Amino acid sequence: MEFSSKLLENAVYEISQLPGIGKRTALRLALHLLKQPEEQTSHLTSALEKLRSQIKFCSNCHNISDVALCEICANPKRDASTICVVEDIRDVMAIENTGQFRGMYHVLGGKISPMECVGPQDLTIGSLVGKVKQGGVTELIFALSSTMEGDTTNFYIFKQLEGTAVKTSTIARGIAVGDELEYADEITLGRSILNRIPFENSMKA
Amino acid sequence: MEFSSKLLENAVYEISQLPGIGKRTALRLALHLLKQPEEQTSHLTSALEKLRSQIKFCSNCHNISDVALCEICANPKRDASTICVVEDIRDVMAIENTGQFRGMYHVLGGKISPMECVGPQDLTIGSLVGKVKQGGVTELIFALSSTMEGDTTNFYIFKQLEGTAVKTSTIARGIAVGDELEYADEITLGRSILNRIPFENSMKA
Repeated sequence: MEFSSKLLENAVYEISQLPGIGKRTALRLALHLLKQPEEQTSHLTSALEKLRSQIKFCSNCHNISDVALCEICANPKRDASTICVVEDIRDVMAIENTGQFRGMYHVLGGKISPMECVGPQDLTIGSLVGKVKQGGVTELIFALSSTMEGDTTNFYIFKQLEGTAVKTSTIARGIAVGDELEYADEITLGRSILNRIPFENSMKA
Repeated sequence: MEFSSKLLENAVYEISQLPGIGKRTALRLALHLLKQPEEQTSHLTSALEKLRSQIKFCSNCHNISDVALCEICANPKRDASTICVVEDIRDVMAIENTGQFRGMYHVLGGKISPMECVGPQDLTIGSLVGKVKQGGVTELIFALSSTMEGDTTNFYIFKQLEGTAVKTSTIARGIAVGDELEYADEITLGRSILNRIPFENSMKA
């Protein structure tokens, strides 16, 4: 693409650095901002700058938070003995939405992934292991995505906790509620047969 | 969505104001920026702010430009007697890419669209008509998109120019080069038959 303006070219370049946004989309977004009142751009840029410079992470669960201890960790009604281990804040939001979990979270900040140069030291695994070794935690629920990286991360944490009395579990994998069996992939279907549950239990949720 | 941080919520809200970006994508982009070095966010925001506050439009063709007269208008080798009328800078870039046009452009800044509250006075039609009436322009090529709004805009400009000697034309509509006839819509196919050209001419480009 050849631009008639360096300012436009630079803005398009910076927007297209965002994941999933190509040059054409970036140009569309830049031209959109030019057509809108100047305040829209300044609101957007100040929101992004504030987010990046002022964001804090909860000292306990490492979730994004505006205060030192996030709402969930600060809530005395939540069960501190059960910790759900997740990748990022989106997983916390998704699980909170179900209304089925009253324990605490621990946000790892990613998965162990040699391909993307993410090792255990880049995640908050040390702080999780420390928390467990301090005592008071009876169960860890691994809720990472069901990929090679997720499984590796689960296993790494599991090994780090050897010798402690903590119980570990992973969330159930199986056919999604409402899904047709014939379209399910064979690994999921296979696991859902192996890990079948008593029919009475299935009527609880 | 419930957010654990007002800063994050605000950033997601502002990003999701951009066209084609929903709340989920906005959250993904915000979390991406949080994972990147702080400079990436500051480069992005300063590029957007500079774009919005310092952008200029060419005084002749209204294209986006960093100087008062854009490169195309300032080029003495371009033919000032032929003006190609387009909606926005993307159309200029697309036509320039073909290398087939050596005239000038006039960027309207949109199309007449009552549905989106865009009237003739919101576009640069007045300046185009003024340019033609001053003389020196022999042909206007309408290169707007082939929609109701595009046709309305063409017709409005055409009526404004009644009484002048300027020639008006529109770019050819037809089956795209490389397209299969059976998949073409009937209006396009119909037009391409009505507006057929001598076979010898078709071998020129």
